Amino acid sequence: GIAELDLDRASRRGYPEAVYCEGKTAEQVGAIATEVGARGARTLFTRAGPEHAEAVLAQLPDAAHDATARLLAWPAEPPEPTGGDVLVVAAGTSDLPVATEALLVARHLGRRAEIVVDVGVAGLHRILSRLDRLRSARAIIVVAGMDGALPGVVAGLVSAPVIAVPTSVGYGAAFEGLAPLLTMLNSCAPGVAVVNINNGYGAGHLAAQIAEPHGP
Amino acid sequence: GIAELDLDRASRRGYPEAVYCEGKTAEQVGAIATEVGARGARTLFTRAGPEHAEAVLAQLPDAAHDATARLLAWPAEPPEPTGGDVLVVAAGTSDLPVATEALLVARHLGRRAEIVVDVGVAGLHRILSRLDRLRSARAIIVVAGMDGALPGVVAGLVSAPVIAVPTSVGYGAAFEGLAPLLTMLNSCAPGVAVVNINNGYGAGHLAAQIAEPHGP
Amino acid sequence: GIAELDLDRASRRGYPEAVYCEGKTAEQVGAIATEVGARGARTLFTRAGPEHAEAVLAQLPDAAHDATARLLAWPAEPPEPTGGDVLVVAAGTSDLPVATEALLVARHLGRRAEIVVDVGVAGLHRILSRLDRLRSARAIIVVAGMDGALPGVVAGLVSAPVIAVPTSVGYGAAFEGLAPLLTMLNSCAPGVAVVNINNGYGAGHLAAQIAEPHGP
Amino acid sequence: GIAELDLDRASRRGYPEAVYCEGKTAEQVGAIATEVGARGARTLFTRAGPEHAEAVLAQLPDAAHDATARLLAWPAEPPEPTGGDVLVVAAGTSDLPVATEALLVARHLGRRAEIVVDVGVAGLHRILSRLDRLRSARAIIVVAGMDGALPGVVAGLVSAPVIAVPTSVGYGAAFEGLAPLLTMLNSCAPGVAVVNINNGYGAGHLAAQIAEPHGP
Amino acid sequence: GIAELDLDRASRRGYPEAVYCEGKTAEQVGAIATEVGARGARTLFTRAGPEHAEAVLAQLPDAAHDATARLLAWPAEPPEPTGGDVLVVAAGTSDLPVATEALLVARHLGRRAEIVVDVGVAGLHRILSRLDRLRSARAIIVVAGMDGALPGVVAGLVSAPVIAVPTSVGYGAAFEGLAPLLTMLNSCAPGVAVVNINNGYGAGHLAAQIAEPHGP
Amino acid sequence: GIAELDLDRASRRGYPEAVYCEGKTAEQVGAIATEVGARGARTLFTRAGPEHAEAVLAQLPDAAHDATARLLAWPAEPPEPTGGDVLVVAAGTSDLPVATEALLVARHLGRRAEIVVDVGVAGLHRILSRLDRLRSARAIIVVAGMDGALPGVVAGLVSAPVIAVPTSVGYGAAFEGLAPLLTMLNSCAPGVAVVNINNGYGAGHLAAQIAEPHGP
Amino acid sequence: GIAELDLDRASRRGYPEAVYCEGKTAEQVGAIATEVGARGARTLFTRAGPEHAEAVLAQLPDAAHDATARLLAWPAEPPEPTGGDVLVVAAGTSDLPVATEALLVARHLGRRAEIVVDVGVAGLHRILSRLDRLRSARAIIVVAGMDGALPGVVAGLVSAPVIAVPTSVGYGAAFEGLAPLLTMLNSCAPGVAVVNINNGYGAGHLAAQIAEPHGP
Amino acid sequence: GIAELDLDRASRRGYPEAVYCEGKTAEQVGAIATEVGARGARTLFTRAGPEHAEAVLAQLPDAAHDATARLLAWPAEPPEPTGGDVLVVAAGTSDLPVATEALLVARHLGRRAEIVVDVGVAGLHRILSRLDRLRSARAIIVVAGMDGALPGVVAGLVSAPVIAVPTSVGYGAAFEGLAPLLTMLNSCAPGVAVVNINNGYGAGHLAAQIAEPHGP
Ligand SMILES: Nc1ncnc2c1ncn2[C@@H]1O[C@H](COP(=O)(O)O)[C@@H](O)[C@H]1O
Ligand SMILES: Nc1ncnc2c1ncn2[C@@H]1O[C@H](COP(=O)(O)O)[C@@H](O)[C@H]1O
Ligand SMILES: Nc1ncnc2c1ncn2[C@@H]1O[C@H](COP(=O)(O)O)[C@@H](O)[C@H]1O
Ligand SMILES: Nc1ncnc2c1ncn2[C@@H]1O[C@H](COP(=O)(O)O)[C@@H](O)[C@H]1O
Ligand SMILES: [Mg+2]
Ligand SMILES: [Mg+2]
Ligand SMILES: [Mg+2]
Ligand SMILES: [Mg+2]
Ligand SMILES: [Mg+2]
Ligand SMILES: [Mg+2]
Ligand SMILES: [Mg+2]
Ligand SMILES: [Mg+2]
Repeated sequence: GIAELDLDRASRRGYPEAVYCEGKTAEQVGAIATEVGARGARTLFTRAGPEHAEAVLAQLPDAAHDATARLLAWPAEPPEPTGGDVLVVAAGTSDLPVATEALLVARHLGRRAEIVVDVGVAGLHRILSRLDRLRSARAIIVVAGMDGALPGVVAGLVSAPVIAVPTSVGYGAAFEGLAPLLTMLNSCAPGVAVVNINNGYGAGHLAAQIAEPHGP
Repeated sequence: GIAELDLDRASRRGYPEAVYCEGKTAEQVGAIATEVGARGARTLFTRAGPEHAEAVLAQLPDAAHDATARLLAWPAEPPEPTGGDVLVVAAGTSDLPVATEALLVARHLGRRAEIVVDVGVAGLHRILSRLDRLRSARAIIVVAGMDGALPGVVAGLVSAPVIAVPTSVGYGAAFEGLAPLLTMLNSCAPGVAVVNINNGYGAGHLAAQIAEPHGP
Repeated sequence: GIAELDLDRASRRGYPEAVYCEGKTAEQVGAIATEVGARGARTLFTRAGPEHAEAVLAQLPDAAHDATARLLAWPAEPPEPTGGDVLVVAAGTSDLPVATEALLVARHLGRRAEIVVDVGVAGLHRILSRLDRLRSARAIIVVAGMDGALPGVVAGLVSAPVIAVPTSVGYGAAFEGLAPLLTMLNSCAPGVAVVNINNGYGAGHLAAQIAEPHGP
Repeated sequence: GIAELDLDRASRRGYPEAVYCEGKTAEQVGAIATEVGARGARTLFTRAGPEHAEAVLAQLPDAAHDATARLLAWPAEPPEPTGGDVLVVAAGTSDLPVATEALLVARHLGRRAEIVVDVGVAGLHRILSRLDRLRSARAIIVVAGMDGALPGVVAGLVSAPVIAVPTSVGYGAAFEGLAPLLTMLNSCAPGVAVVNINNGYGAGHLAAQIAEPHGP
Repeated sequence: GIAELDLDRASRRGYPEAVYCEGKTAEQVGAIATEVGARGARTLFTRAGPEHAEAVLAQLPDAAHDATARLLAWPAEPPEPTGGDVLVVAAGTSDLPVATEALLVARHLGRRAEIVVDVGVAGLHRILSRLDRLRSARAIIVVAGMDGALPGVVAGLVSAPVIAVPTSVGYGAAFEGLAPLLTMLNSCAPGVAVVNINNGYGAGHLAAQIAEPHGP
Repeated sequence: GIAELDLDRASRRGYPEAVYCEGKTAEQVGAIATEVGARGARTLFTRAGPEHAEAVLAQLPDAAHDATARLLAWPAEPPEPTGGDVLVVAAGTSDLPVATEALLVARHLGRRAEIVVDVGVAGLHRILSRLDRLRSARAIIVVAGMDGALPGVVAGLVSAPVIAVPTSVGYGAAFEGLAPLLTMLNSCAPGVAVVNINNGYGAGHLAAQIAEPHGP
Repeated sequence: GIAELDLDRASRRGYPEAVYCEGKTAEQVGAIATEVGARGARTLFTRAGPEHAEAVLAQLPDAAHDATARLLAWPAEPPEPTGGDVLVVAAGTSDLPVATEALLVARHLGRRAEIVVDVGVAGLHRILSRLDRLRSARAIIVVAGMDGALPGVVAGLVSAPVIAVPTSVGYGAAFEGLAPLLTMLNSCAPGVAVVNINNGYGAGHLAAQIAEPHGP
Repeated sequence: GIAELDLDRASRRGYPEAVYCEGKTAEQVGAIATEVGARGARTLFTRAGPEHAEAVLAQLPDAAHDATARLLAWPAEPPEPTGGDVLVVAAGTSDLPVATEALLVARHLGRRAEIVVDVGVAGLHRILSRLDRLRSARAIIVVAGMDGALPGVVAGLVSAPVIAVPTSVGYGAAFEGLAPLLTMLNSCAPGVAVVNINNGYGAGHLAAQIAEPHGP
């Protein structure tokens, strides 16, 4: 077969399998969706272009699809939320696709999650006026391109871990996200966990794990 | 003054200040240690060379010093551990300095923490025989140089978040830790939080935050 | 002329010439195909786009063409297989084009070759359940993008040489295949031979050479 | 001769020549100092190691020498300050050598200049409590290593131009100052002028030019 | 909301907000334009493609639009110029888009600004014949791709600060502007302030700040 | 004006001006062609796309145009050749566009020039069988992508200088020509002069200068 | 314990464990040597500095030590050679340490192995005069720094696989071995297996595997 | 043997062999010097440290040694100069070691060669006042670090080829010579031949070849 789905991941790790659509043909993704439906296994489809989405929806017509986040989820309804709260913070409007992917993944993995947009460090009052909201979250995802300075600033203000997602927003010496990636890895404030450039999926997954409910 | 200690960090963030010794003179570090003692504020001194250690111990003779980890802690005794367990896993013996830094930081920030060494993917049975121990931790720190493959393998086996620390162990195309850094950022298994190359301090801090006790 | 075919390569090296189509016009490739037919020399055409394929097939209508692998072979039928077995392992479904190129090249250069797909390290049981198959091969080609961790894991389990092919599958800090390339060059397990990013042709060629029949 | 001093720079540009000592032998620097003395031309000696300093002082015993900044100035006394004020801000204590070089150069080129140290973004209250001082300067130099986030944060708060100096303070993915350099080039807040890594001299020079007195 | 406009920037910093259009949808930019109009706040729209421009002009039909510079300004008329003069110098004709963006931004931020084009160092007489004009400016913006040598040459001839803008003009080892960026950061002549590759906006902003009017 | 043609270059340097078309609009190139025609100055137009070519030919209908080399020359006829011979050697057929640009430039700058194609090091007999031809040239241009090994091999066999032109032919770790560029800069055989990736123009110009006639 | 020796590697893979000494203290290496002796397991110690060697020899006084190759082997005597022949080729004298490491490793893993030195492509006759010897080997290791051109040239002449080892010999744009590494990955001649920069150990191991005896 | 001297290089190429001393032991260099003396073959020893120099002089006591250039030549006396003149231009005093190496190599390969020092573009009058001297040379070597702008400026003023040698002079974003290397490869003025960073040897060799005497 062309794919060996890791469907026992839910039992092994507690989180469902996710199918990375980029680099797969629509036919391949469609065939995987068929198997997913047959097995009845909760599954995400990430980085799905229009033709991937069409192929999934042809097999799983009741799947949820967010075109901005390039994400499909089946079943469409997230599980009842448990554990701590997740907050997603986007530095700029252009970071929305990645931030939305993170938001939706956290929800589909079982967490309550909210989003705040366009509060980058160029106008510091915007993040400082959200301190209470920041401090009430169990895990904070901060999405930023260009200078990537926001995650470190947020981490310096809160107790919860900050998951930093560099984006390819920017140009020139942003080098497709390399600049914010390096910024985040070198954050002066400790408590910053970095994931790959534009990796909203990974950030949402990590946030769900960190905010997982634990016995007292 | 030469330093503006962030001593209200403990109240703001819940974790003590850490003084980054590299690039400071022994005199500067000594002056900071004096202020730390005067204020009675729990503090770590990281990446401390022998002359830095000497300067700290001259002011705070009862501080704890681990030469391998290049770490000093004052007071010497970590707080009574709370929250979940932290497990530190080192791929090779050469990763010990970074892994030890992570271990001690997690302990000094209030967590129970243990370490397992030399269980890299070249002999997979070594990590597979520790599955139970891996699965009992609330946060797992995986330290690896060269190919940096271990964190992704561990993440694929457990439910807890994995904090991946690339090290500069290796040579040639390891490029001082760039190779394992990139590996970890591109982990096929989700749930991998990356910190800077050789950043045992940041990993220990993040693990302590993730394993923080929460009400039920 | 525009090309100086190395057709004595078969006698000098024991393996046929391969024409690298990228960067050549369809006219140039067509002219080369004409010469190939005239000389009756077994030849591969690699990285052939649709227009290259068309130009070859216009001259050599009985050539074999695999669009996924972007490969044409003339004559279409591989030689009778000799030597040891070659096994191609692809970490993910998206690695199929490169893996298929490697598979077909190994066959057209005279080896028995099989393929296994989507057995990456995120779900380790998938590769561990193929140990017998891995251990029966004389040469193993492992194709992987993103973290590129699979070749090192496989090498640690077998006696045969592993040929590692990094792919450009992934995004962000995968840097078009740089990340898995560096991982493979730094493999903790010895016995990993690395070829260029997406170089299925080179991997298949090398595997054929390694699994070459030798007198006792 | 071994050097062709640009001593007419003062008349052409309004600022004195500076001798870059690194890569010159002590003998060469001594010979240049002799010529400087003979011509009576105000001159700076930058990035001077102990042996360079000794060679200059042997020829110009009344020169000023700051070992931290690795700077010598002759004559020792800066000119009477004119123009606007320059403020130098250092993110951390380890940035002091570069920040001091910038401070002294601005003074020796004729500006009033002050310094504030260890006010990085990890503890944001430290910079926010200096807003008045920041807003009274005609040019602000911000020196930072690691994440290099401070210049952009400062630029977002003031009207004056910010000169950003990345330093090699940090380790791992700081890549000897590359990380803060990229951060500064990608600052979300406009008004950030970037100079070379560790280039305190260039920053001081640029600040002096920006704060130059102009007729009304 | 999708955007949190920093409209108090004018009062805080003295310069209006600029909306970075790249990575935003036309709908998002249109919504921002509506808010801009409603608030009556002077605003620039940078790096605007045709569809962004259309969306802005639908809401603010009297905005100024320069397609070469990819810039929109509202209101269309720049404020009455004050302060010193700004001169924009472009090394080659291909640098015109970036140079024009810088020119227009400087004007819309309240400065008198002129432009000189195609005076690169390959024919040195071209820049040498403009010495008087160069020396009359309070701030000089020099835009150059390829070798990026012009800013350093200009800085060596004048007293005013030079703002250097590397462009992505060139090919091969120009690496999309990396080569001129490095050249400018390493300028032998002091007094060179570097901004991001192709960042005409940032250069115009910085020039406006440097040439700001000050009391005597 | 939009362009300041360096038409006195012919008198100053002995070689005509060349207009770099990339990044210029067709209108701009057309305007330049008009001026060229009016002044009657021998001129080359390099890296000209179809729309550039059309714009030049509209103004200078008798110009020569080679679409493969993306070159136009006016007047169409090269000057009568003088000086030594130039030989252009291309490692592979895919290097033809760059090699042809070099060939035509050398001819239009007044040298006799010939070309040999597809003689890369994978089949060494191809270059070794041309030793006489190589040794009769005053300057040899060697164009190669991928491993870029051919120039060093040629340089080791001859007395004349070798001008090495790396091309972007290849994929993966060829990194758009970086690999052959580095190879050529590190040539073990001395006598290799390197120009920019794909810079056939620069190579042809340099060869013309080297093979320039000199009195006895 | 500090190390988890993979001593069952011999049974699992057919080749003994190797201890990577760099980054380990002499004490750690000594402790490992003690365990090696106690278990009686054939073991190599690679990249061993003088202090590591001393620590090993203190525990295993009859171990073989080659200071140039920085290698120790215990027991000192290689096993009786089987399988095909291995030939090690060094481009220059400066490549000797790496080449010797490869040679000794191949012998200690059970192959007959010989070496040829200083036959780089700058004087092509040197390698061409060894064709017979090259063609009699089952695996050829080619070690080269600087341009790294030799492996591709050799691969084009023979039927056996070529293992290419880039070295850090060279300076400037050799970038510590990056240049020859890229050259080798982009070899025009197929049949080149690349290992890490300076990785003589890996090359010798791979050669031993390729030249392994097989039944007819 | 450890070295296979390419002593027939003089007859094949017309220029003597050069021994690259870096990475060789003093013993190896001494052994090579013995062979050189025995064969009576004119030879250069480049990048020779003090211990290499001592080893050569022990065997060839009448060799010439320049410690700045790290060069030895045997026989000490250059041949009677023929061909055109070579001019070496150094941008700064710190470039002297590389510039001197180039100068001496050109002389030992049979050319008349002179040097001009510290005429970088920061003070443009210094190079402009040497126009006559520049225009009288058949080949010009320009050595520069930091911004590397001088070779392009010189090339724009003369007819002869310019050999550009980037040096590692500078710091920070000079990246050990990468910045001037890229500048030179992207020179706006054609006629610039680039060699490796700090490669004075290669520059001198190339200049000697270019200025070679030819029949009329
Ligand atoms: N080893 C370390 N790695 C990364 N960050 C650190 C390290 N040690 C301390 N830090 C952080 O760096 C900040 C600045 O350090 P300092 O220069 O001492 O003011 C501290 O407040 C810590 O949050
Ligand atoms: N896909 C490929 N990747 C790398 N090398 C190749 C590929 N296809 C062919 N080659 C090699 O590249 C050489 C040059 O190709 P060509 O440009 O067609 O003469 C051929 O002789 C092959 O050895
Ligand atoms: N072309 C540009 N280049 C760099 N920064 C810009 C540009 N245009 C706007 N900006 C800045 O980027 C900030 C974020 O933009 P936005 O994403 O629209 O909120 C704005 O507030 C501006 O200060
Ligand atoms: N300083 C140098 N830089 C670059 N190439 C050199 C240098 N010195 C010698 N070479 C060349 O490098 C080749 C290899 O040197 P070796 O390793 O001594 O055999 C010599 O034959 C010279 O052609
Ligand atoms: Mg601090
Ligand atoms: Mg081990
Ligand atoms: Mg070919
Ligand atoms: Mg899968
Ligand atoms: Mg905004
Ligand atoms: Mg022009
Ligand atoms: Mg040699
Ligand atoms: Mg000077």
